Amino acid sequence: MSSHPLYISKAVYRLSRSPPSFPSSSCLLLLSFPCLTLHSSHLSMALLEISPSYAGSRVLPPNDLSSRPINPLLAFKNRLPSLPCSARRIPRILCSVSPNQVQAPVLSATPAGATSKRECFGVFCTTYDLKAADKTKSWKGLINIAVSGAAGMISNHLLFKLASGEVFGPDQPIALKLLGSERSFQALEGVAMELEDSLYPLLREVSIGKDPYDVFQDAEWALLIGAKPRGPGMERAGLLDINGQIFAEQGKALNDVASRNVKVIVVGNPCNTNALICLKNAPNIPAKNFHALTRLDENRAKCQLALKAGVFYDKVSNMTIWGNHSTTQVPDFLNAKINGMPVTKVITDVKWLKEEFTERVQKRGGVLIQKWGRSSAASTAVSIVDAIRSLITPTPEGDWFSSGVYSTGNPYGIAEDIVFSMPCRSKGDGDYELAKDVIFDDYLRERIKKTEAELLAEKRCVAHLTGEGNAYCDLPEDTMLPGEQ
Amino acid sequence: MSSHPLYISKAVYRLSRSPPSFPSSSCLLLLSFPCLTLHSSHLSMALLEISPSYAGSRVLPPNDLSSRPINPLLAFKNRLPSLPCSARRIPRILCSVSPNQVQAPVLSATPAGATSKRECFGVFCTTYDLKAADKTKSWKGLINIAVSGAAGMISNHLLFKLASGEVFGPDQPIALKLLGSERSFQALEGVAMELEDSLYPLLREVSIGKDPYDVFQDAEWALLIGAKPRGPGMERAGLLDINGQIFAEQGKALNDVASRNVKVIVVGNPCNTNALICLKNAPNIPAKNFHALTRLDENRAKCQLALKAGVFYDKVSNMTIWGNHSTTQVPDFLNAKINGMPVTKVITDVKWLKEEFTERVQKRGGVLIQKWGRSSAASTAVSIVDAIRSLITPTPEGDWFSSGVYSTGNPYGIAEDIVFSMPCRSKGDGDYELAKDVIFDDYLRERIKKTEAELLAEKRCVAHLTGEGNAYCDLPEDTMLPGEQ
Repeated sequence: MSSHPLYISKAVYRLSRSPPSFPSSSCLLLLSFPCLTLHSSHLSMALLEISPSYAGSRVLPPNDLSSRPINPLLAFKNRLPSLPCSARRIPRILCSVSPNQVQAPVLSATPAGATSKRECFGVFCTTYDLKAADKTKSWKGLINIAVSGAAGMISNHLLFKLASGEVFGPDQPIALKLLGSERSFQALEGVAMELEDSLYPLLREVSIGKDPYDVFQDAEWALLIGAKPRGPGMERAGLLDINGQIFAEQGKALNDVASRNVKVIVVGNPCNTNALICLKNAPNIPAKNFHALTRLDENRAKCQLALKAGVFYDKVSNMTIWGNHSTTQVPDFLNAKINGMPVTKVITDVKWLKEEFTERVQKRGGVLIQKWGRSSAASTAVSIVDAIRSLITPTPEGDWFSSGVYSTGNPYGIAEDIVFSMPCRSKGDGDYELAKDVIFDDYLRERIKKTEAELLAEKRCVAHLTGEGNAYCDLPEDTMLPGEQ
Repeated sequence: MSSHPLYISKAVYRLSRSPPSFPSSSCLLLLSFPCLTLHSSHLSMALLEISPSYAGSRVLPPNDLSSRPINPLLAFKNRLPSLPCSARRIPRILCSVSPNQVQAPVLSATPAGATSKRECFGVFCTTYDLKAADKTKSWKGLINIAVSGAAGMISNHLLFKLASGEVFGPDQPIALKLLGSERSFQALEGVAMELEDSLYPLLREVSIGKDPYDVFQDAEWALLIGAKPRGPGMERAGLLDINGQIFAEQGKALNDVASRNVKVIVVGNPCNTNALICLKNAPNIPAKNFHALTRLDENRAKCQLALKAGVFYDKVSNMTIWGNHSTTQVPDFLNAKINGMPVTKVITDVKWLKEEFTERVQKRGGVLIQKWGRSSAASTAVSIVDAIRSLITPTPEGDWFSSGVYSTGNPYGIAEDIVFSMPCRSKGDGDYELAKDVIFDDYLRERIKKTEAELLAEKRCVAHLTGEGNAYCDLPEDTMLPGEQ
């Protein structure tokens, strides 16, 4: 133990700083470093606190640990800095109902043991044999879904949708791995508690953490929602930099610990350039696996076309958002269809299409903030669900969906090496191909050029984060979408 | 028109006060009173403003109406006071894309006409033939779901669950009728906009309003979430009275305009007594149709038992919450089962069951507020979904669920004529029967007596609202659940 007193002291510091309560069901604590192993089968036994000077220790009174949920153990892990002896081997902490707390045979539960790989939260700290119960026999294997910004409002909608089976289906058990920040960690515990209380049968694991190298471990989906909001007086270049650094780090973490075929959806803004930074920092993951969310724009565009045409929104198809998730975005009415007919044949008010339509889509978020007093968390979460579903279900014949994807190799003449929203089709295997049969006219080309120019300028702004030399930031105007800064 | 200038002036007042924008797709406006009919096929034509003195009028410039969503029309209706010529005939306002805005044949949409009965919001202002499209042929008939407190956080989760099909199934089209207050009306418009942008195919109508007599029209489900929070220094008796008045009015409205078989779930606290007031004011609706939500307590109790026993929560069944949704509630570990065995055989720590368990369930909401900084909206919404599903799907053999229901005729010896949470079973037809095979011991009986006494005291407190004479309010201690005041 003495080889890494710093980590233990930091970890126990957290426990001693926040000792108000602890689960009566005690916890199995296991730290497994290549160069350090600490194993304690009962946390209700005395905990050693090693002082920052690495001398002196005191025994925490058991009473201090009597009624608090398991969370401090998770925080424990997250206080650990990057590890000098192995930056990639993260200590494993398993919280579990300890055997002596289980008072009778439990038919289908297997308490977590040394073979489990994840942190856990509350009731999710016991692992279970998915195949034990009859109804779970036809279930698929567990998938790991990592969500950043997990304590925020968008996640507060999204996590419950993921857990309910609404997204991945009623036979797909789910492990949620929630990434928060120092500031949001308590809120993250609250979210995990609400997930417990929701009793979703498909939700088999919930783990929470602050270190992306830990939370992204084996992630098959990474939904990157968290981003810093713009502070007072901050220029857009500053925002690009501060968020870019977050996404550079998360890209590196994904590269190192996530599933080799992880699908990444970047929601935190500026999402296109954040996605570019992320994929540039994850060279071992196919660039094609990274998406920037423009699905809410697509949905809003469909709704506005339906409203104008007097049809229900399910009659609108082939709606492309081209380019950046900003006010330069191009909702494409040239290729969109209503009841299978070109929109331009159904809505002949060209002035409306060229002027009002795009503005309505762009300004929707701002209007919503005025009305509702906060940004559109619920519909953003719905659009994330739509984006995921579009990748895991075959795209209907003749239709497509929009996603900000890596532009290299695109057939539309759009600049390479940026993340650009384009029309995609999927076979339902998580992958996509770019849509064919797309037409262009001068008006569409011209507007695509403008959003392309913006993305190229944003890219130059973050060159220091993509490994392409010195940044040169010249963003003439601010095109952030209202309420999405 | 001159017979009711007051209403027109009030209505137009609202339009002229809030004229910043208006849909370019114009609206069909129809007021149909027994004693007044105003019909205007285009709101983009000049609107007459009749001044409060009933003299003078001015034409609003069309520009003022150029880019605003349809909402003011709905607000229009809601500014109307109760009608002297017919308190029950509410003016009908139909917002629709007007025919001249629809520029080409629209295959399956039928613009709303004079036969439609509801207000509408945005894209939901056009009515559609549900059977027109292939995939909708097997759909059930539209059901009307009214939700009060619709601009609040619980509803913000619940409405999207209802609209997604998660609650009533993938073949059940939904009409949402949202009740808000003067204060929350703009937020309600924001919610409706987010519902539009979510493109849920099953969501066929959204209407918003402030008058329960209007919003509850033909409601088949009424989810009464809205309640006033307790102000500083307000006694519980005061809270019972102020909320009781809201639920008395809503009960009367349900009695007058809702479906004769409407199912009512009261969530707004104090929910048991609010439900009692509501049902007492709705004598033409079976008392059995009213529920007070104790499902979140049930879910939390299951989770805590699972955590203690080291099993996954789906192994816990037969969990009854007895009595009031307050700190006197009785989570019943005597009848509950884990893996089909009595909990008391699995968890032999009787002290924990008697002391800690109940407290954990009661205090869960408070702990969550500490962690998360706000009350548990997401898991409350999940529990409302669970409560609805329990009534529309057959209860699994041998199991039951908890709901606060009308106690008259109960087989457990509980006082009659209160709303008391008890174990229920359903055939899935929306109705329920009380569970048999329930056992009691002295400990359980004693605690049930205590929560019963509290509910009887609350009932005496609101006698003036249930038509039972003068109120006598003697509530010795405050047992509101934390964060649920």
